Amino acid sequence: MKLQVALDLTNLDAAVDLARRLHRGGLIDVIEVGTPLIKAYGMYAVSRMRVCCPSALIFADLKTMDAGRIEVRLASENGANMASVLAAAPVDTIREFSDEARKLGLSTVVDFIGVVNVEERVKEVLNAAKVDYIGLHVGIDVQDSRKVNAEVLIDEAESIKRKYNVGVTLAGGVDAGTALKLRGRDIDIVVVGRAITSAEKPEGVAREIRRNLGLMQ
Amino acid sequence: MKLQVALDLTNLDAAVDLARRLHRGGLIDVIEVGTPLIKAYGMYAVSRMRVCCPSALIFADLKTMDAGRIEVRLASENGANMASVLAAAPVDTIREFSDEARKLGLSTVVDFIGVVNVEERVKEVLNAAKVDYIGLHVGIDVQDSRKVNAEVLIDEAESIKRKYNVGVTLAGGVDAGTALKLRGRDIDIVVVGRAITSAEKPEGVAREIRRNLGLMQ
Repeated sequence: MKLQVALDLTNLDAAVDLARRLHRGGLIDVIEVGTPLIKAYGMYAVSRMRVCCPSALIFADLKTMDAGRIEVRLASENGANMASVLAAAPVDTIREFSDEARKLGLSTVVDFIGVVNVEERVKEVLNAAKVDYIGLHVGIDVQDSRKVNAEVLIDEAESIKRKYNVGVTLAGGVDAGTALKLRGRDIDIVVVGRAITSAEKPEGVAREIRRNLGLMQ
Repeated sequence: MKLQVALDLTNLDAAVDLARRLHRGGLIDVIEVGTPLIKAYGMYAVSRMRVCCPSALIFADLKTMDAGRIEVRLASENGANMASVLAAAPVDTIREFSDEARKLGLSTVVDFIGVVNVEERVKEVLNAAKVDYIGLHVGIDVQDSRKVNAEVLIDEAESIKRKYNVGVTLAGGVDAGTALKLRGRDIDIVVVGRAITSAEKPEGVAREIRRNLGLMQ
């Protein structure tokens, strides 16, 4: 299990500073350049992150909906190791994206935010494209308005991983409490956003989450 | 009917130069800062466009899937008049996005790319949020792999406009031939991308499309 921090900020300097501290402290495994950060600064946000943390795994949360090859190329040229395409995108786009990602040495995360019938779409996606991770995801707006978080997705994520032999990632409102429930579960990447980025002491929270996940003493 | 040019490029200087020529020539009504351009350069692409064409209608093609308020605020602060949210996004996100857009004086386009049952989703979207345009859209990857374009959507767009009393936009592979078929049809905004941006003489093609649409002599 890996811990990914989602930097869903719109202040790039703050995001870079936080990533550096968490990465140097050995507190996170994957640095996510969030979609709002990409839309605010473009690929400069990804390259800044690569420069600040040369040895880190960097995930560009593109949430691509069209023009799959073009977008994944941008992420690659700017130093990303992983990038996301939307499960809601046409399968043609998911295929273009994942084929190009594979050529360029990036991993593909298919982000299931907004998809209602998840398992049906997992089958369609896996029939059409070779992807690395199925990303189950409760979005920020849904967390806030419906008071749910990614806990509701743990069983489904494990079941998809076992049944389809594909990596799974889990995102959406994960905090130290959720982390305890995730301990020992068969999830490849756990994504934490605001619980860390909005904390007064982000390193302290990241350490607690890492401990609760069973990733450190 | 308005003509919108979609600048789906990844070279910002070229996009700005083309926008300026088309706008000064009176050949287009709306300048679209395309999603790949936003992901490459961030909101700088939108502000560059605003500076180069101060009086133009500028559409930021955000294709927002989450964090609706944050993203529409970015577009507004950088000078956009219109912005897009995905129909595939959770309705909570579409509502947050369109409420914030309305407050900030932007128009909301809901982009239906990737949505299979369009009319059912139109109803859900209009029940949940006050939006300005339903954007019917055949994406680039689908155009290329399935050899279809937005002509297949003309009847559906007109029917949605009439039935739900909402603005409609049409995008996806529109060229001079499609423009002839669109003449006299009840579509609010026709979006043209590669037919203009990849043309040897973009102004010439834009003029031909404008004529074919019946927007100039």
